[in-house]
Amino acid sequence: MPGARRENRSLCPLNVSLEILGDRWTLLIVRDLMLKGRKTFREFLDGGENIASNILSDRLSRLEAHGLVERRRNAQDGRGYIYRLTQKGIALAPVLLEMIVWAAQHERTAAPASEVRRMIKHREAFLEEIRTRWAKE
Amino acid sequence: MPGARRENRSLCPLNVSLEILGDRWTLLIVRDLMLKGRKTFREFLDGGENIASNILSDRLSRLEAHGLVERRRNAQDGRGYIYRLTQKGIALAPVLLEMIVWAAQHERTAAPASEVRRMIKHREAFLEEIRTRWAKE
Repeated sequence: MPGARRENRSLCPLNVSLEILGDRWTLLIVRDLMLKGRKTFREFLDGGENIASNILSDRLSRLEAHGLVERRRNAQDGRGYIYRLTQKGIALAPVLLEMIVWAAQHERTAAPASEVRRMIKHREAFLEEIRTRWAKE
Repeated sequence: MPGARRENRSLCPLNVSLEILGDRWTLLIVRDLMLKGRKTFREFLDGGENIASNILSDRLSRLEAHGLVERRRNAQDGRGYIYRLTQKGIALAPVLLEMIVWAAQHERTAAPASEVRRMIKHREAFLEEIRTRWAKE
């Protein structure tokens, strides 16, 4: 059937998540949108990890196809787009939080200790702030 | 310097996590160890997603190199190994839980609704059970 998604490897929910999120770039774009206030292709490209533009382009398309990101014409710049997380995209906040906390506790990272403590001790408040900021935009 | 790890793309904690976990297979092996009671190469190979043996081999080596998994000789079978999560590996339980919950809430999966509800409503108890089971093994 044209346009149908190919079958998942399995319907295990972790596997389903990994088929969408399981690569080294996708969640960095979600991070840029969720936590860094970045919204344009150019801003993602300059995000700090030197993503190649063809990979960025591919991952944005996939995020859009999976309904995690939506885009609209940039009013200031008729040529470009503004990207925004959908409800389904912002719902990844707890996944990002747990990956951040895990790395901060087990690897060398640039995460400020006070911020990590806040994520752990005031987890719900931290997540609520993210959702509120997103809803206001 | 021989043996030194290459530099991370960035020290953003999410990026650091993704450099270790960001692929479509690594967390499935962690799942097998954490939630499915699988312990041997053969059991991972039969895990349900048809992982290729060369990929499995590579991901197990990386998990070991990053200190998430340890292995010892299989006493029943002198040739093989038994794998086990380390403390750092079991600390990924909240990451897995959030990815499972996200997929169950936003995609078609085989996750039983009652189990997902339990993960959400009794999150801490669910995580504590995982840690307790791991500590006993």
